[in-house]
Order: sequence, then C-alpha cells, then structure tokens
Amino acid sequence: MNWKNDITEKLNSDYSIIQAPMFGVTTPEMVAAATKAGCLGSLPLGDLPVEKCRDVIRTTKQLSPKLFAVNLFANDIPVLTETLKAKYGAVKQFIENLAAEHGLTIVLPRIDEISVTSYHEQLDIILQEGIKVVSFTFGNLDQQSIQMLKDNGITLIGTCTSVEEAKTLEASGIDILCVQGLEAGGHRGSFTLDNVAMIGGMSLLSQVFDAVKVPLVYAGGIYNSRTLLATEALGAKGFQVGSLLLGSAESALKEFEKERLRNVKESEIVLTKSFSGRYARGIKNAFIEAVEQNDVILPYPYQNKLTNEVRKVAKANGNTDFVSIWLGQSNNGYSGDSTFEILKKLIAQTEQADHS
Amino acid sequence: MNWKNDITEKLNSDYSIIQAPMFGVTTPEMVAAATKAGCLGSLPLGDLPVEKCRDVIRTTKQLSPKLFAVNLFANDIPVLTETLKAKYGAVKQFIENLAAEHGLTIVLPRIDEISVTSYHEQLDIILQEGIKVVSFTFGNLDQQSIQMLKDNGITLIGTCTSVEEAKTLEASGIDILCVQGLEAGGHRGSFTLDNVAMIGGMSLLSQVFDAVKVPLVYAGGIYNSRTLLATEALGAKGFQVGSLLLGSAESALKEFEKERLRNVKESEIVLTKSFSGRYARGIKNAFIEAVEQNDVILPYPYQNKLTNEVRKVAKANGNTDFVSIWLGQSNNGYSGDSTFEILKKLIAQTEQADHS
Repeated sequence: MNWKNDITEKLNSDYSIIQAPMFGVTTPEMVAAATKAGCLGSLPLGDLPVEKCRDVIRTTKQLSPKLFAVNLFANDIPVLTETLKAKYGAVKQFIENLAAEHGLTIVLPRIDEISVTSYHEQLDIILQEGIKVVSFTFGNLDQQSIQMLKDNGITLIGTCTSVEEAKTLEASGIDILCVQGLEAGGHRGSFTLDNVAMIGGMSLLSQVFDAVKVPLVYAGGIYNSRTLLATEALGAKGFQVGSLLLGSAESALKEFEKERLRNVKESEIVLTKSFSGRYARGIKNAFIEAVEQNDVILPYPYQNKLTNEVRKVAKANGNTDFVSIWLGQSNNGYSGDSTFEILKKLIAQTEQADHS
Repeated sequence: MNWKNDITEKLNSDYSIIQAPMFGVTTPEMVAAATKAGCLGSLPLGDLPVEKCRDVIRTTKQLSPKLFAVNLFANDIPVLTETLKAKYGAVKQFIENLAAEHGLTIVLPRIDEISVTSYHEQLDIILQEGIKVVSFTFGNLDQQSIQMLKDNGITLIGTCTSVEEAKTLEASGIDILCVQGLEAGGHRGSFTLDNVAMIGGMSLLSQVFDAVKVPLVYAGGIYNSRTLLATEALGAKGFQVGSLLLGSAESALKEFEKERLRNVKESEIVLTKSFSGRYARGIKNAFIEAVEQNDVILPYPYQNKLTNEVRKVAKANGNTDFVSIWLGQSNNGYSGDSTFEILKKLIAQTEQADHS
C-alpha cells in the first residue's frame, strides 16, 4: 500500500485516511486523535452559529498542532411559505404528543423561535482561523464562495452520491471528491431532498472514476483492510471512515447509545428522513416508525430543527426510542478503543494485507 | 489473478466467472457462449412449466457439450385468499385501462386462467436431464429437496441479500453462496417480499465473508477488471455478470430495448415491485410510475402473471413504456458483441490489470 499520493500531498497527512465529519458524534478530541494518527481529521460545523464555529475550531486547534478539515452543509434553505409554516405547526404537535405518550415531556420551538444558519455565514470564520481544508456535503458551494476559498489557498472536498453530482463538482473546480456509497451511515450527501440517488459503492465509485479526473475519496462501508483495499481497486486514493469511530473513546455518543450500536441487528439499519427531512442511515426506533407511518416530515432543515430538542431530552434520559443513532451498513463491532488506536490498527492491518 | 479455486473446481470451469441467469434475457445461445468462453453458463427456468424446462435444457445441451447451471425460483407461493382474488381483479382492470390509454389493447388473464409453477415440479426434469449445478434465488430450497439434489451429486448455489440469509443457506448445506449486492440489476434475490435488505455490495460481501465459511460468488455491479478485482479483495472467489451481457448478440432483448439501455440515464434506474410484486431494478417508465402511484401491486408471482401479457404485447410493439428492462447500477455501455467476446475481454482485462 503506497499511501503517498496527490491526496496525502494536498492534505499534508501521512495516510490518505480521513476521519469522517459526523455532526453530533465527532468531537475536537476525535479530530485531534485522527491527525495524531497521521490521518486527516474533519471537524463538522453543521448549522452551528458563527460563534460556536469559532469555539470548536479553536478547541480543536488547541488539541492538535496539525492541519484538519472543517465540514460545511452546502444545502439551500427552503423558503418558509405559509403552507410550510402550517405543516410545521402540525408536525410540532404530533411529535410533542408522541413524546408525551412515551413519557418525555417536551415543548418544541415555534417556527419563529428557530434560527437557521447558512454556510455563507460560516465562511469568514474559516478564513480568520486559517483553515486550509474545507469539505462539504448536501450540495455544491456557490461559485463565488468556491473562488474565494480557492483564492485563499484552501483545498476543497465535495461530496457526491451520483455520477451527475460528481461531474458538477468537478466542473466547479473542486479539488477532491468524496464519493459516498449507499452503505454509508448518517446523512446522504445528495444535492437534493427528493429523488435522490441510492447507488451502492461498487457501482458508484467505479462509475465516478470512469467519469471524472479529480482524485477520489471513498466513504461508505470501509471498516477493515479488505474493504479499504477493495475501494482502492475501484479507483479511490483516499478512504473515509465514520462508523468505525462511532464507539470510540472520543465519540460524543453516550454509553447507552454505544451499547445500542453494539447490539444492532442487520435488519434494524434503515434509511429515514424522519429525524431531519433528509435521508440518513441509522437504527430504526419508535420515533422513526411513528413519523414515517404518519408521514409528518418537513423538508430539511426544518424537521431537523424540530427534532433537535426531542433528541436532546431523549439522550439525557437514556431513551433509545427518540435519539438518532446513525451508522453504516458494515457492522464493525464499534470498538471502544481510542480513535488513535482504531486508525492505527486499520493502517497496520492494511499494510500487512498488502504484503501478504 | 489465479482463477483456479474451489469454485472453478466445483463448477468444472476455466474461470470463476458466472453468466447470470436472467429470466427473459438469457437464451440457450448465451449459456452456450458463456461455457465456450470457459465460464459457467446459467440457464434460468423461472416459473416455466415442466415441458418448457425440458425444451430449453435440451436446446442448451445441443448447443454446448459443457456443464452449465440451471436456476430456480425458490419462493413460496402465497395462498389465493378471497381478498387477494378481489385485488387481482382490481389490478387487472387498472392495467387494462392504463394500457388502453397508451394505445395497447389487451385482455389480461382472469385469476382462474393463470397457472403457477413451483420449483418442486421442476426437480424431476433436472435430475432426468443430468444437470450438475443448480442455482436458486427468492429463498431457500426445502431441506428435502436440498438433500435429494445433493444425493444426486448436484452442486447447489444459493442467493443471499443479507448476512442472515447467508447464514441460513450455509446452515442448510448449500455449497456456494451468490452474494447479491444492491447494485445488481433485475430481481432482488431476497427470501421475503417485504422488509427486504437493501445492502450495498461493499458492506454485504465483506460482512458475509466475515460470517460464513462457504465460497462466495459476488453479483451486482461487476463490469470491468476494477470491479471484479474489488470484489475479490472483499472475499469473492466467483464473479457473476448479468447486466454486462444485456446488449450482447445472444440477449433476448429486442433491438429497441437494447437501444433504450444504451440511452439510459443514471436517475432512470429504479427499484420497483410494479412488474412482478418483487423488487427488481430496471428502467423507470410510464407503467412503473402509474402502478406505483396508484399502489396496485399484488404479491409475487401474481403481479408477474398479470403483467406478462402487457409486456409481451409492448415488446412486440416496440413500446418502451410497458416493457420491463432490467439493469444494474453500473452502466457498462451494453456492448452488442457476442457473449463470448464480452467475457473473453473481461478475462483478458483482469489478467492484464493483475500483472500491471
């Protein structure tokens, strides 16, 4: 395994392994541990307000002297029509009632109480903090932002879930593409909310490789040397791991959530829009079943805003029925070791497999 | 690439490549061409009545002196309840009206006019004709049939779409497992009609490899040396190709269907139950959209029986809106070359890639 390639060069890392930006799971400690292991750490900013972005970036910088990426949500924000406002009210009521039936007393925010952050607001802080790698998902950045980031010497990593999205990103001058197979845990990186591509990694990665020239990172199902080397055979030069780190010491998941992960059955892993209004892969629970059955799903980010509070309360109460536990289709055992140890083990195993 | 392994030994072939049994597409000529190329040809029997099974087996034997597999549908047949009969009538009416709106005048069979063949009825002819490899899909064979086939020296290849199904097949003494990634074209081999696993090849193959000891064939997305070698890295010893042969000279698809394949867009490839009552991957058309929108879908095999006639008439009329054109998620260009040439090219490309 020759790890050195144009990806390690651009990312200034020893290994072309990327720790996936998992909003709600990835901590500054996880990012620092990944960089310490010679990999690229990725700090997810999600829809954090600007001041929070500054805080997590600074915390991460304090923990690690090395370069790390920040990850942005590049989605458009749907206009708040009267219809959407009315539906918000109905969904709010449904979820409050559902939670009450399950013993969780909560009051969810009214629509005038929520605030939505766009990635445009986060760009200044990224420049100010001297970030050198920006990855993004849920769409493409606008051309002006792309130009501005590139002018500032920033390497851009876009996420694609179809060949069409890959071509769009390449045409926009994005440096590296993260190809997200259907196997991946958490949110699909699709550009749209509906009619999204559901393409398995085997087809997607090889087809994207056929269609574009930019270097490719693969995400979705990598958990050991065999899966890593398979994606290399398909054309990936970089390897992103997320689910492999869910159980790690640095994961923000609570112990009861890690326990649930370790007990998960294959048939419990589903794709659902119920928590956020975007497809995400996670463990089926009472919340998902009730929301899907009653079709009370707002477009992202509104569904997400609405369910934030339920999840927070459920998490504090150790209630697996109302938290979103995301994970991919490869059960990796969800080791409780440190991120450093887990990544070093993957690297060692890959090098050994390669020499056998 | 060392093609020789316990799969080539069991299948008595030069290469561990299997031509997929594609009911409605695979012809005796395709099977013979695959065996001539040193691969394993597979003749699908589907739900053909016994005398038809004999005919196609004998035709294939006349074309090829070598061993080939026959493929069975191992599904249970749902009991015809009064509710199901009533629904059959409604779906029949809906499809007849829909076809008429699109200029196709057809009368579909009444429920008392259809006949359903079970694989049990086909077993005698398989023994009589001296078949030595039997593959199957849509479930597991019953234990008595498995024992009987094994007692007659027949090698069995079962199909799995989940780790759970793989374990069931292994526990039943099946010799080889065909692991069908979500990428595959045509019907999902799932044991059940509902709540079926939708697992990408990357995760599925590596997880099945971790869980069982029997040799594995992979199906779903293989179209060149890279995809083939990737599945080898994941643990496959055999490689099944179906979509790669859809456009071939020996394919039963009509020219207008091959043309449609070659023009397909990524976003037009969907999983649908609308033609058969089982999930299958193919090209979205007016029929699929109307049937899904109106949710007029009977359980397999009843939906399939009902749509057979529509498809036949549409095929004769060059009507892409009412034929089922199955295909996988890897666009391979759908070469019009012979099956022999396509397979030889894949073999040569793989050997070359391996030496580079």
